[in-house]
Amino acid sequence: MPLTAEQAAEIEEQRAQTGTTRRAISEGMEEHLYKAHEVLDHGLIRVIDYMGNDSAITQAARVSYGKGTKAVSNDEGLIRYLMRHWHSTPFEMCEVKFHVKLPVFVARQWIRHRTANVNEYSARYSILDREFYIPKPEHLAAQSVINNQGRGEALTGAEAEAVLKYLRDDSDKAYDHYEEMMAEGDDDKQGLARELARMNLPANVYTQWYWKVDLHNLFHFLRLRADSHAQYEIRVYAEKMCEIVKDWVPAAYSAFEDYRMGGANISEKGLDCIRRRLAGEDVTQENSGMSKGEWREFEGMLG
Amino acid sequence: MPLTAEQAAEIEEQRAQTGTTRRAISEGMEEHLYKAHEVLDHGLIRVIDYMGNDSAITQAARVSYGKGTKAVSNDEGLIRYLMRHWHSTPFEMCEVKFHVKLPVFVARQWIRHRTANVNEYSARYSILDREFYIPKPEHLAAQSVINNQGRGEALTGAEAEAVLKYLRDDSDKAYDHYEEMMAEGDDDKQGLARELARMNLPANVYTQWYWKVDLHNLFHFLRLRADSHAQYEIRVYAEKMCEIVKDWVPAAYSAFEDYRMGGANISEKGLDCIRRRLAGEDVTQENSGMSKGEWREFEGMLG
Amino acid sequence: MPLTAEQAAEIEEQRAQTGTTRRAISEGMEEHLYKAHEVLDHGLIRVIDYMGNDSAITQAARVSYGKGTKAVSNDEGLIRYLMRHWHSTPFEMCEVKFHVKLPVFVARQWIRHRTANVNEYSARYSILDREFYIPKPEHLAAQSVINNQGRGEALTGAEAEAVLKYLRDDSDKAYDHYEEMMAEGDDDKQGLARELARMNLPANVYTQWYWKVDLHNLFHFLRLRADSHAQYEIRVYAEKMCEIVKDWVPAAYSAFEDYRMGGANISEKGLDCIRRRLAGEDVTQENSGMSKGEWREFEGMLG
Amino acid sequence: MPLTAEQAAEIEEQRAQTGTTRRAISEGMEEHLYKAHEVLDHGLIRVIDYMGNDSAITQAARVSYGKGTKAVSNDEGLIRYLMRHWHSTPFEMCEVKFHVKLPVFVARQWIRHRTANVNEYSARYSILDREFYIPKPEHLAAQSVINNQGRGEALTGAEAEAVLKYLRDDSDKAYDHYEEMMAEGDDDKQGLARELARMNLPANVYTQWYWKVDLHNLFHFLRLRADSHAQYEIRVYAEKMCEIVKDWVPAAYSAFEDYRMGGANISEKGLDCIRRRLAGEDVTQENSGMSKGEWREFEGMLG
Repeated sequence: MPLTAEQAAEIEEQRAQTGTTRRAISEGMEEHLYKAHEVLDHGLIRVIDYMGNDSAITQAARVSYGKGTKAVSNDEGLIRYLMRHWHSTPFEMCEVKFHVKLPVFVARQWIRHRTANVNEYSARYSILDREFYIPKPEHLAAQSVINNQGRGEALTGAEAEAVLKYLRDDSDKAYDHYEEMMAEGDDDKQGLARELARMNLPANVYTQWYWKVDLHNLFHFLRLRADSHAQYEIRVYAEKMCEIVKDWVPAAYSAFEDYRMGGANISEKGLDCIRRRLAGEDVTQENSGMSKGEWREFEGMLG
Repeated sequence: MPLTAEQAAEIEEQRAQTGTTRRAISEGMEEHLYKAHEVLDHGLIRVIDYMGNDSAITQAARVSYGKGTKAVSNDEGLIRYLMRHWHSTPFEMCEVKFHVKLPVFVARQWIRHRTANVNEYSARYSILDREFYIPKPEHLAAQSVINNQGRGEALTGAEAEAVLKYLRDDSDKAYDHYEEMMAEGDDDKQGLARELARMNLPANVYTQWYWKVDLHNLFHFLRLRADSHAQYEIRVYAEKMCEIVKDWVPAAYSAFEDYRMGGANISEKGLDCIRRRLAGEDVTQENSGMSKGEWREFEGMLG
Repeated sequence: MPLTAEQAAEIEEQRAQTGTTRRAISEGMEEHLYKAHEVLDHGLIRVIDYMGNDSAITQAARVSYGKGTKAVSNDEGLIRYLMRHWHSTPFEMCEVKFHVKLPVFVARQWIRHRTANVNEYSARYSILDREFYIPKPEHLAAQSVINNQGRGEALTGAEAEAVLKYLRDDSDKAYDHYEEMMAEGDDDKQGLARELARMNLPANVYTQWYWKVDLHNLFHFLRLRADSHAQYEIRVYAEKMCEIVKDWVPAAYSAFEDYRMGGANISEKGLDCIRRRLAGEDVTQENSGMSKGEWREFEGMLG
Repeated sequence: MPLTAEQAAEIEEQRAQTGTTRRAISEGMEEHLYKAHEVLDHGLIRVIDYMGNDSAITQAARVSYGKGTKAVSNDEGLIRYLMRHWHSTPFEMCEVKFHVKLPVFVARQWIRHRTANVNEYSARYSILDREFYIPKPEHLAAQSVINNQGRGEALTGAEAEAVLKYLRDDSDKAYDHYEEMMAEGDDDKQGLARELARMNLPANVYTQWYWKVDLHNLFHFLRLRADSHAQYEIRVYAEKMCEIVKDWVPAAYSAFEDYRMGGANISEKGLDCIRRRLAGEDVTQENSGMSKGEWREFEGMLG
């Protein structure tokens, strides 16, 4: 449960308020506004604001005076053309602002995407809540034995139990000491500065931020983070955003799915192998010019 | 007259359409939406979309669940605090998209501000209109005799007339040849590629673009371009934007005026001179530690 | 001839000076330093400075204490892996600074790449030289009849001659008037401000700038601008830079060639068609799910 | 002691290697190259590479063919002029690459500066060392009683001892469990994935990265982080970088000190108060138009 009753009420109150605007509207996105989509055990993602819709993309591409839309089908064709040919600037004309609650170790990956605007809850000014990410047993993955970066099967039995106990106990104790060190309300103590006390909290503590990004850079983020190689704990946020973006700009999202998420980059060597195969040649790793690792990935892509 | 009758009609039609939204609204900005504000002889600036209002700034600063506003006075105080202490990220949470029609030499200065999204009308695909900036006589300034970058008095008499004639005639002839080289509709000619023909057009030809920017970076742009040292032809665009931003986010604009536009950066030496003067000392350029140029600017700032 | 004798001498003097450094060195790049590579009729591109080499990429990827290199072959494999998996940050650890002289209409395309640092020669302060790009007859292309953005065959005969005459005469006259309006050295005239007089110059006038960029963003620029669909006049600059980068970071450039320049992005539909073809199915545009335009591009890619 | 003997040897080996270059050299910076400057208890900062020197700034500002230097005094004057008038692009023409080892909570503040290139040591791939920041007793500050963000006096006596014990013990235990959960080398266990195990580590654990930034953006970072209001633990890194930059580009650093570090931004209201005071008027908070908070800061600035 990522929300308190008071927070839920604030959200409902805000969802109930509507107004009149001349701006471009996305009906699909209006439904999402302010709603708390739960992610992980205490996390959430909420749409706070958005700018533009599918038509805004083509309107900008045409630098037009009016709505820029002649027919929906024209817009879809143009959007697919823009995506296919890497004309990224029209997609930059849409913008979205999210409120995200997420574990610190996820936040640390996320922030590496620099082309976004961020306001994070400050642990220098304020006190963090006692909320820690504890994985479900099925996500307690072992280190992959074939890939330094990967995850293997889930831990089982006593090993899984021991790990969960460490994570829970260490989080709890760290938070107990965090509070004790700050000694809020204890007049007999000076109380350690918040900016120092926070250093005792582990990376599974939850933080939150407002994160604002344009659609082009959001697609870039989603391509990397909704990918099957991304760490599970950030991927679930990316997947939730994919659902939201699909409702916001359906035509742009559909082009993104076809050309980016479902598509692939093939090297010159890979193209050559495909051409040779289509011409009937028997191409193997040995005569492909690729390393074993590349060949494995190439074969995987062709199914 | 920067608009055709058809364009004006398209704009009116769009202004007449309203819808319902849950998003934050700025009533002052709704009035501006799509309206063509005329700038220079054929230029314009129009608000195409916006995200956020004064409350959105404080809501982000507080990373809050609801509207983030307790009282308008609280918001104003917080906004002033954020501006004074260079907390720029909350101002990045507001975004605006303009449609601008402007001479190419102005566009070339403008584009140097990199933290914005741009879609420009393409002279590779499309044909530019016969529209050129011809300064009004009072803006036909002479080169400054004291400042390499500055403008002096307006030219007068025969010299002014000769300059205006050159600008008008050369623009006209360049456009005639632009059309002749492309030979649109002339089946007896191949017609020069548009991407080449455009190279004959001078820098006072008008182009147009969609330009989207967050409020923090817009303030940075306005501080430099609405400044009295900016070239007149870009300053008039910046001044028009200042009026618009004032209606959009009145509290943020007021803080911007006080701390940025009307304020000043004083060097360590300058601060020292002020302290010495307030203590009764007679400080001159000679004992200030400043160069003559710096001293002149320092004296100018203190009035 | 893009250089005066004085400029050539300045360059030679600078090339003759060497010093001792502890920094990473690229021998291939040292050869290029300061040298003027001629591009178009008056343009040039020169390497002014660089940071890093192939080893610097892997050193950063490993966040290592020493040189980060175990064996050149290890470096090459790692660089290929980083490029294949879009790990862009290690490539950002190399930086290069160019001095470029180029026509204004090329500069206007170039500057759209925002992730670079630029210092342009200022026509507000200074007077531009009488240098204009006049295409060679073989580059005087007609508008493509099948593609709005494309170029067709070169113009011929009287039409070509007329175009060249317009370009030459209009440039010359525009520059004559530019000089007359500024009236430098004429004490009987006030002289129009430089920042205004420049507006009379057409887009084929040459400008120049210092342009600094990291290797990742340079690769992105080169992929778009050394592509066969880029306008010829910017492509020649990109191709020259490709040669330079190849000498600077041979392993990174080789990976870039294989995975980016020579590779392709294939959509989900395209991958599906390839899989079906490899399985022996006869796939046509009609049963591909692609539009005619996409199918034409897809077929072109598979040769 | 932030370095192992092996690391120290690698560094010495690299410092011993020199080569010949045509590039601009900063003798002051050559001295720093690769050297480990210790910061905090286990942290360090090292210069890995640099591009440019004071002359490179003026060379770019002049877009010159040769060295761009006429006389050192000219360069200094021009650099001061550029800094005073916020001409930031010439400063962007210098670049520096650091290797930094720092606690995670410091890294989280640092990374908010987005205009830099970063490669961080990956705790998904690799195992972090057992190194935690434990403040010295004199830096164990209490929460400020007058400022939410500030630090008060250092804790004393039993309270200080208790805090240090918590920080030490919790770090140690967290690392013990981190190792146990991963169970490296224990064939009887699957071992938790590194990307998950790291979530148990508190924010005082050390990480490291390569951080590359241009001089303009570095100055912006230093102005905020070497300021007396910055958190002590990041300020010590900023102060060390100030010393380094001073050796690298002495003229630019001197201008930065005068106009940025030692200078101040004064609001329109503040300028008005100074003018009135200089004219002999008795200006107080009540008739200043400033809030109490602003007035306190204003008085502080005027000493």
